[in-house]
This record gives sequence, structure tokens and C-alpha cells, in this order.
Amino acid sequence: MSKRLIPLLDRVLVEKIVAPTKSVGGILLPETAVSKARNINEGKVLAVGPGRRAGNTAELIPMGVKVGDKVLLPDYGGTEVKLSSKDGAKETFLYTDSEILGIVSDQ
Amino acid sequence: MSKRLIPLLDRVLVEKIVAPTKSVGGILLPETAVSKARNINEGKVLAVGPGRRAGNTAELIPMGVKVGDKVLLPDYGGTEVKLSSKDGAKETFLYTDSEILGIVSDQ
Amino acid sequence: MSKRLIPLLDRVLVEKIVAPTKSVGGILLPETAVSKARNINEGKVLAVGPGRRAGNTAELIPMGVKVGDKVLLPDYGGTEVKLSSKDGAKETFLYTDSEILGIVSDQ
Amino acid sequence: MSKRLIPLLDRVLVEKIVAPTKSVGGILLPETAVSKARNINEGKVLAVGPGRRAGNTAELIPMGVKVGDKVLLPDYGGTEVKLSSKDGAKETFLYTDSEILGIVSDQ
Amino acid sequence: MSKRLIPLLDRVLVEKIVAPTKSVGGILLPETAVSKARNINEGKVLAVGPGRRAGNTAELIPMGVKVGDKVLLPDYGGTEVKLSSKDGAKETFLYTDSEILGIVSDQ
Amino acid sequence: MSKRLIPLLDRVLVEKIVAPTKSVGGILLPETAVSKARNINEGKVLAVGPGRRAGNTAELIPMGVKVGDKVLLPDYGGTEVKLSSKDGAKETFLYTDSEILGIVSDQ
Amino acid sequence: MSKRLIPLLDRVLVEKIVAPTKSVGGILLPETAVSKARNINEGKVLAVGPGRRAGNTAELIPMGVKVGDKVLLPDYGGTEVKLSSKDGAKETFLYTDSEILGIVSDQ
Repeated sequence: MSKRLIPLLDRVLVEKIVAPTKSVGGILLPETAVSKARNINEGKVLAVGPGRRAGNTAELIPMGVKVGDKVLLPDYGGTEVKLSSKDGAKETFLYTDSEILGIVSDQ
Repeated sequence: MSKRLIPLLDRVLVEKIVAPTKSVGGILLPETAVSKARNINEGKVLAVGPGRRAGNTAELIPMGVKVGDKVLLPDYGGTEVKLSSKDGAKETFLYTDSEILGIVSDQ
Repeated sequence: MSKRLIPLLDRVLVEKIVAPTKSVGGILLPETAVSKARNINEGKVLAVGPGRRAGNTAELIPMGVKVGDKVLLPDYGGTEVKLSSKDGAKETFLYTDSEILGIVSDQ
Repeated sequence: MSKRLIPLLDRVLVEKIVAPTKSVGGILLPETAVSKARNINEGKVLAVGPGRRAGNTAELIPMGVKVGDKVLLPDYGGTEVKLSSKDGAKETFLYTDSEILGIVSDQ
Repeated sequence: MSKRLIPLLDRVLVEKIVAPTKSVGGILLPETAVSKARNINEGKVLAVGPGRRAGNTAELIPMGVKVGDKVLLPDYGGTEVKLSSKDGAKETFLYTDSEILGIVSDQ
Repeated sequence: MSKRLIPLLDRVLVEKIVAPTKSVGGILLPETAVSKARNINEGKVLAVGPGRRAGNTAELIPMGVKVGDKVLLPDYGGTEVKLSSKDGAKETFLYTDSEILGIVSDQ
Repeated sequence: MSKRLIPLLDRVLVEKIVAPTKSVGGILLPETAVSKARNINEGKVLAVGPGRRAGNTAELIPMGVKVGDKVLLPDYGGTEVKLSSKDGAKETFLYTDSEILGIVSDQ
């Protein structure tokens, strides 16, 4: 049995993209090469909350990201979330919508 | 005679889910296994307040959780509440609605 | 001649419930037993102010508690108030309405 | 020639009630007896300002106290004001309306 | 050629009232007598700004003091302003309107 | 080729007025005489931004100063701006509109 | 394959203008000459977000800069962004719209 998290307010559940530690040919990459090869501040959006309520009303402020978006994350911040699941090794974090810096698109 | 707490404003009374310290077969689990086996940051909502009033008006902001929800709690925060009751060992905490990270659903 | 305090704004005058230091049979209880036997964070509302005014208007925000309510108090906070009266030993404190955690009901 | 202070905004000019240092029979009271006998956190309102303006408008928020009220003052805060006058020894302080804890009534 | 300062926003240009250091008969007064004789926290309003704009609008909030008012100043705060003028020794300070404690009237 | 800065929001580009280090007759003035002779906290407005947007709307709040105004600057604050230009020695600073204390007029 | 960043909210992606380290004639310039020759606080806007939402509503506040603008940057602040691309050496930073001091125009 696996668990699923439905974020509240303007929280966003993000899976950090882990850099591959082996080259395509199977050779182990040195650590510097790994962190240079791929930006480890990127993540994939797994789930988004309904949004924060605006100051004086019950109006919901629309979220900036959606499930599936590839996003740029800040160096600091984010709350690690551990949920028991079949693929246990996933690094998932909660960010608020406004902490996410931008959407990364591969052209 | 047992006591019941009716939270005020946007407070939520949560019972922390305590990890089992024995395996199903009755064998005592080592501490690392226990904390790995189940996330101890999960809780069950026992009671919810009516909601916080919006900034400039007497309008109530709807709560994000309801009684019975299984929720993900932050690592820090929450106020422990001790109420004399028959099942005295329960660990109950008060959180504000916005502190609760998300709702956990078993799929 | 005794004095009476009419709280201003959203302040609430609370009398802390002091744990009995003697058992029903008249035997002095050790300190640990006393604090365990009854939660000393409970209080009784003696007087409530008219309420805080909402941000931009002169509108009064309704209070969450009323005179006679048995309330759960936070561990810290509250301003002790000493008023000369016939029953001088009462421990009375001022809290703001939003500091009070919840209403305790005996079921 | 004496001076009079007209407070601005939501300021309140309060004269602290000084405990008598002699008993009715003329005997000097020890300091502990004095501070116990009368609460030295009480004061009498001498003058009140027109009120603070609400956040976004020029609307005045009505004051909670009026001239002549006997009020309960907080332990800290208040700005001492020295005005040359015939009865120079008076201890007068400026508080904002929201700092004053409550109105004391003798029943 | 002398200079004149027109304060911006809700700033108020105040000339501090300096205590006389000579008695009427021409005898130099000791420092304690001087500061006791006159309250050195009093000032005269020389110029007032147009007022601060209310939070969300371009609406101007009316000022609490006007040119010529004798005002009570706080112990701390105020920005000293030195403008070259014929009577150079004047001690002039800028305060915001809300820092000024009250208007002093001689009865 | 020279550069020009167009300030954003409520920023104001100010050129500090540098005190003359020679007397009218050509004699070098000692430093104390220089800083006494002219207030070095004065400046001339070179450029102004369109204004800050009011809290909840896109409404622009009008600026308090305009190009050419002689202004009184605070002792601290301001961001030095170096732009390559023909007259390179100019000391130019950016202030926000609300930091500028007042407008100095020569009568 | 190169990547592109679409900033969220009122963030602005800026490429810092790097001072040339060789003179037009090909001679290496000493470091002081380099930093004097060109202001290293200038940048070029590569991408802009949709804008920040105003306080109480879902209304978007228009951005102050647009793609291609040459801008003056503050000495501190900005978040370095590393995106794998063909021209990897570019120094790109994220600023919020309100941090950018002004637009630089070559006349």
C-alpha cells in the first residue's frame, strides 16, 4: 500500500531531480562532473495545493505551477517529506508556490 | 468523567500517530526500524475550530482540514495539550490550519 | 469595598484553576501528583472586552469566549492582574481573545 | 501659569495613583505594606486624544477610555510627561489607547 | 540669503525650545536649575508637510499639528536639520506627525 | 557617448552638492570651514521614477519631488550610482521618494 | 539541447554585463582599469515573469522592465542561475522587478 500527499494552501510537492552518478557508458562519474553535468536545483512538480487565500477575502490566488512542470528551485528552503511508497528513494520536498523561481523548458 | 476540547479560531486538534514498537509477529523492533517503518509526522484530526476571521471583516476563512483527516505535520511547532481522559496516553497537539502541510491519503 | 475590572478591546479576564493540594480524604498530595491530577492550564472566564476593531473600519470583531466558559490557556503569556477584593487569593490573568486555545467541555 | 497637554492621535494622559505612605492614623507604612495595600498599576485619565485614524481612510477609531476613568495600566510602557504646574509632584504618563488594559470600577 | 525648508510627506519641522541659561536678573543658572525650570522636550512648529498618503489610495491623511503650535516631543527620535540662516544657532529638528506626543497649551 | 539613468518605481536620482574647497578669492578652505559653510546633505534632483504603486491596486502614487528641486537628504541611506559620462566626477545617488526629507528653497 | 527559464511572479532573468579584460588593441587591461572602464552593475534583461499579484486580489501588477532592457542592478541581492546551454559561461541572475534600480539608456 502506497501513500499520496495532497498539499494544502499554496504548497507544491516537488521531486528533486537527482544527477546520474554513472555515465551513459556505465563509468562512475567523479562528483564534480556530476554536479556540473546537471543542475541539481531542478525538480518535477508531483502535486499542487488549491492556492493561498487572498488577504481579506476567501478568494483563492491561482497557482503558478502545475503537475508535471519542470521547475527551478531555490538553494535554501523547502521541507523534506518522507512518505512510505514502493519507490522509497525519491527525494520529495514541499515548497510554497512563491518560492519556486521559474519553469524550465527544454527547447 | 472525560473532557473534550473545542478549538478556537483556526486551530486544529491533532492526535499524533505513534509508530508501533512491536512487529506484527510480536517481536520488539529496533528504534531505527520503527521510525523508518512509519512516518511519525502524521496525525489524525480530532477537532477543528470555526476558522480565522479575514483581515478587515468578520468573514470566516474556511478550514483546510476536517475531523478524521489523516494529515502531514511539520517537524516543529504545535502546542501539546493534556486533557484528563480515560485513554490518557494519547499525544494530542494544537496546530493552526495553515501549519498543516497536507492531507495523506492511502491509495 | 471590592473592585471589578472591565477589560478593553479583545482582552479576557481569566481566573486560573488552581489544583487542590489536598486529597479528598485530607491528605497533602505530593507536587507531582497535584500537577498530574489536574491540568493547571485551565481557567474560567470572569469578564470579556467588547472586541478588537477590524483593520480599516470601526467594526467590532465578535469575541470567541463568553463569561463562564472554561478555557484552555497557553503555557506562556497572559498578564497577571491584582485587584483588591474580599477573596484576595484569586489568580486572575488578562489574555487576548486570540491567545485562548479552546473551550473545555466536560462531557 | 500652568500648562495643559492635549494628546494627539490615540494617546491618553494618565495620572498614576500613588499609594499612601502613611496609614490613616499617621504612622509611616513599610514599603511592602504600601505596595500590597493598593495596586500601583492604577491611574486616572486626565486627557484623551481624538483617536487613531483607521488604516486606509481618514476615519477616526473611537477611543476606549474617557476623561475621569480609573484604568488598569500595564507593568511596562508609558512615556513620562513632565509639565510645569502648580501641583508639580503629579506623576503623569502618556499611553496609547490600546495599551490600557481595562477600566476599574468600585462596586 | 537665508534658506527655508518645506517638509515632505507627514514631516514636521520643529524648533526646540532652549532653556534660558541666565536668570531674569542676569545671573547664570546652574545646569540642574535650568533643566528643571523649563521642560526641554517642548518645541515650536516651524513648518508642516502636506501629510502622509493613506495605505491604498492617494488620499492625504490630515496633519495633527499646524505652524505655530507648541508641542511636546518624545525623548528620542527626530532628525537634526542644519540650514544656513541669519540666526544660525536655532536647533531645528524634523519629526513625523505621529511622533509628536501632544500640543501644549498655556492656560 | 554618455549614459542616462531612468529610475524605476519611486526612486529619485540626486546629485549631491559638493562644498567648494576654495574661497571666492581662491584660498583653500580648511575642512571644518567647508562643511560649516554649506550643508553637505543637500542635493539636486536629476531624474525621478514614475512612482510606487499603491498597495492593492495598480494606481501610481504621485512623487513628492521633481527634476531640478533642491532637496534635503538624510544622513544615512541612498545608493551610490556610477555612470560613465563626460563629467565623471559627479556624485549621484538613488533615494526613494519617501527618504527625501524636504525641499530647500532659497528666499 | 539547451534550456530556457521562464521566471515566475515578478522575477526578472538578467545577464550581467562582463567588463572586457582586453583593450580594443588586444592588450590585457589591469583590473582597476577594467572595473573603472565599465560599470559592472549593469545587465541585460533576458526574460521577465508575468508580475506579482496585488495584495487582496488576483490582479497582476505590471512589470517595470521588458526583455532587452539594459538595467542598473543593486550591489547586493540577486540569485545566480546556472542553466546548461551552449554558451555556458553566461552569468545569469534572477532579481525581483522592484530590486532593479533603473533603466540605462545610451544617448
